[in-house]
Amino acid sequence: MKKIILLTGFEPFNKETINPSWEAVRTLQGWHEGDFVVHSRQLPCVFGQASKMLHQAVEELQPSIVIAVGQAGGRVDLSVERIAINIDDAPIADNQKRQIVDQPIVTNGPAAYFATLPIKAIVHALREAGLPSSVSQTAGTYVCNHVFYSLMHQAHEWGTTMRAGFIHIPYLPQQAAAHPGSASMKLEDMVEGLRIAIRTTMAHDVDMREAGGVTH
Amino acid sequence: MKKIILLTGFEPFNKETINPSWEAVRTLQGWHEGDFVVHSRQLPCVFGQASKMLHQAVEELQPSIVIAVGQAGGRVDLSVERIAINIDDAPIADNQKRQIVDQPIVTNGPAAYFATLPIKAIVHALREAGLPSSVSQTAGTYVCNHVFYSLMHQAHEWGTTMRAGFIHIPYLPQQAAAHPGSASMKLEDMVEGLRIAIRTTMAHDVDMREAGGVTH
Amino acid sequence: MKKIILLTGFEPFNKETINPSWEAVRTLQGWHEGDFVVHSRQLPCVFGQASKMLHQAVEELQPSIVIAVGQAGGRVDLSVERIAINIDDAPIADNQKRQIVDQPIVTNGPAAYFATLPIKAIVHALREAGLPSSVSQTAGTYVCNHVFYSLMHQAHEWGTTMRAGFIHIPYLPQQAAAHPGSASMKLEDMVEGLRIAIRTTMAHDVDMREAGGVTH
Amino acid sequence: MKKIILLTGFEPFNKETINPSWEAVRTLQGWHEGDFVVHSRQLPCVFGQASKMLHQAVEELQPSIVIAVGQAGGRVDLSVERIAINIDDAPIADNQKRQIVDQPIVTNGPAAYFATLPIKAIVHALREAGLPSSVSQTAGTYVCNHVFYSLMHQAHEWGTTMRAGFIHIPYLPQQAAAHPGSASMKLEDMVEGLRIAIRTTMAHDVDMREAGGVTH
Repeated sequence: MKKIILLTGFEPFNKETINPSWEAVRTLQGWHEGDFVVHSRQLPCVFGQASKMLHQAVEELQPSIVIAVGQAGGRVDLSVERIAINIDDAPIADNQKRQIVDQPIVTNGPAAYFATLPIKAIVHALREAGLPSSVSQTAGTYVCNHVFYSLMHQAHEWGTTMRAGFIHIPYLPQQAAAHPGSASMKLEDMVEGLRIAIRTTMAHDVDMREAGGVTH
Repeated sequence: MKKIILLTGFEPFNKETINPSWEAVRTLQGWHEGDFVVHSRQLPCVFGQASKMLHQAVEELQPSIVIAVGQAGGRVDLSVERIAINIDDAPIADNQKRQIVDQPIVTNGPAAYFATLPIKAIVHALREAGLPSSVSQTAGTYVCNHVFYSLMHQAHEWGTTMRAGFIHIPYLPQQAAAHPGSASMKLEDMVEGLRIAIRTTMAHDVDMREAGGVTH
Repeated sequence: MKKIILLTGFEPFNKETINPSWEAVRTLQGWHEGDFVVHSRQLPCVFGQASKMLHQAVEELQPSIVIAVGQAGGRVDLSVERIAINIDDAPIADNQKRQIVDQPIVTNGPAAYFATLPIKAIVHALREAGLPSSVSQTAGTYVCNHVFYSLMHQAHEWGTTMRAGFIHIPYLPQQAAAHPGSASMKLEDMVEGLRIAIRTTMAHDVDMREAGGVTH
Repeated sequence: MKKIILLTGFEPFNKETINPSWEAVRTLQGWHEGDFVVHSRQLPCVFGQASKMLHQAVEELQPSIVIAVGQAGGRVDLSVERIAINIDDAPIADNQKRQIVDQPIVTNGPAAYFATLPIKAIVHALREAGLPSSVSQTAGTYVCNHVFYSLMHQAHEWGTTMRAGFIHIPYLPQQAAAHPGSASMKLEDMVEGLRIAIRTTMAHDVDMREAGGVTH
């Protein structure tokens, strides 16, 4: 039986009518290669609901790898998140019009979890393929980080071998046109980037060691 | 006889070993479509020499359209320059190790020339094609602006119908890998962008009117 | 009789309730030192009206020096503008709800005018005083540039010895609080910066030569 | 007996000849008000050594509050760090020419610690005082984060009531002059900001709840 890769993307938020994360993720529904096959799911941009739907998908599919994907308008590349932190602190309301401020995602949960994807190897492989990429030291404190932390907590609680992480992607060019000065990336490059992230994760049980940090 | 489009790109500068402007421009050498054909030339990143070589190429080829292309490391999109200004003010030395500060490019020349390409139509067409693009209000004060101003001055002195302008392009992904936080663009997208800029210029004798400015 | 220095600042625009340019400029109304005295005037953020009011003030006061000041939200320092260009291209409507796109400010006027303030000496003096400052290569294409170009055109038409230019200033800290990630400057530093700009202009008939350009 | 506040700043690094964190911190050596007094210490920009010296200072002084301060060249305000993470991943060598990549700071330590300063109240008070400030979601992965994590780990191991955290500060104006486009802040504003941070920490056993997060 094929190993299952779960990809998630988000519905549009913050006045956008499209979310590149879902556009990229939906394109890979059913994609298979070697011994894996991709399942794609859309998550709402809503605190609580998003993590609940993700948990259900994980329970149902029992994936070997989960990569949650989210839009990071203004970022310039495929940024592979290093760490999820145990706080919701929303600068804007979510799609249910709730703005949560300074609440832990999991009461008494650890302050943070590191991603268990081979993040350095993924960044390395993306650059090799001519796709701009970097390690990110923060996934923010909004619904993306909320989903990322919930996912890592679930993996930790289960004690499974499931590996998981989060990738932030830039605006699509059509979105950037409405946000002058913002970088963007073509959908096909995002999709190709996710393919590379999956293949690299399959190929690396242990991450590469390669500088990917920042001074501040 | 086919109309001639002259494209110029630069040699690498500022410690880079590659210049995306030349990589993109060289790819289009000989490209033809309808009634035009492209000639590609490389310029040195040297004050004086660069403009001299460009003048010679213009004299030799008698192009209908000239698009000079240059690397703008850190910019996020294909930025179509609006205006060239009559000043050399180099923040770093050129490839001949000369750093010119506050000298007019043409003594007693006008303060500036506007590009005569249909810049709004080009930005519009690039965005339609899913390529991020914007109008830029400054080409800087280094060799790119030097070449751009010299080109527009030559066109003005001749009183020709030749149309001309300048497009700045981001780093290539492989360059951005060495400049974390910098946006980048794939070579094939840059090349496609230049094709679109050429076709749009051929199709628009008069520019579109569409907002492309900034508050400051 | 004392020489007159005219300072102008703008009314608030773009949903702000305060404009640091007017706050700084109004503070200096009547300030005098040696043989000069400052007159401060507020301009509306309206194409046409703003330049008309400035022209009237110049006619009335016959100043030796005019420094127009404007808010540049997001900029990090006191930026001394090098050049004004002959185009209105508004990304947002002005305070009369008009959005002018691609119209020359002065029909058949030159493409641009360089500031006649000693811009390098001003930047140098500001940095010496511990105030961050830089030369800016573009004042944008909105009401600030509109006023700047109109001012330089008036000076040129008159053939006067009046020297003139434009300085863009960042948000105030209280504004930056509403624009996370934006730099800001304290009002007293802005005021001190304008004092230094005036004194430096009085002291330098000829500008210093010091690199202040950018590669793009 | 007065409560002790320990402030630390760093020696210069990365080719700078000055470090604003030490300049600001040294100014406050011996500052006292109400029932507290400040002790200032300089730390080397060296992995391991820096945390060792900080631990010794904490053991010796038994402070009630520790605020470690570091330079964040390019940041625009006084940024109060939310979380320290258990990883060294240096983009550049430290002052002993060692570049550590992907090593935990404390083997088997938790992934992260939240600061125990009232970070929201500090940001609020700084803005009230007209000083730009924001919560930062990452202190990077270099010596600043190394010291911050080591400090929080020590506090946690001891089970003390000592509260601790980290504040990143921008370049000084004289440094920004060499890094065009970088924001900066006057030394006296930094010093005033640290005074406010100390007073606010003394006044708030429990933090305010006020949005301070980011979407990504």
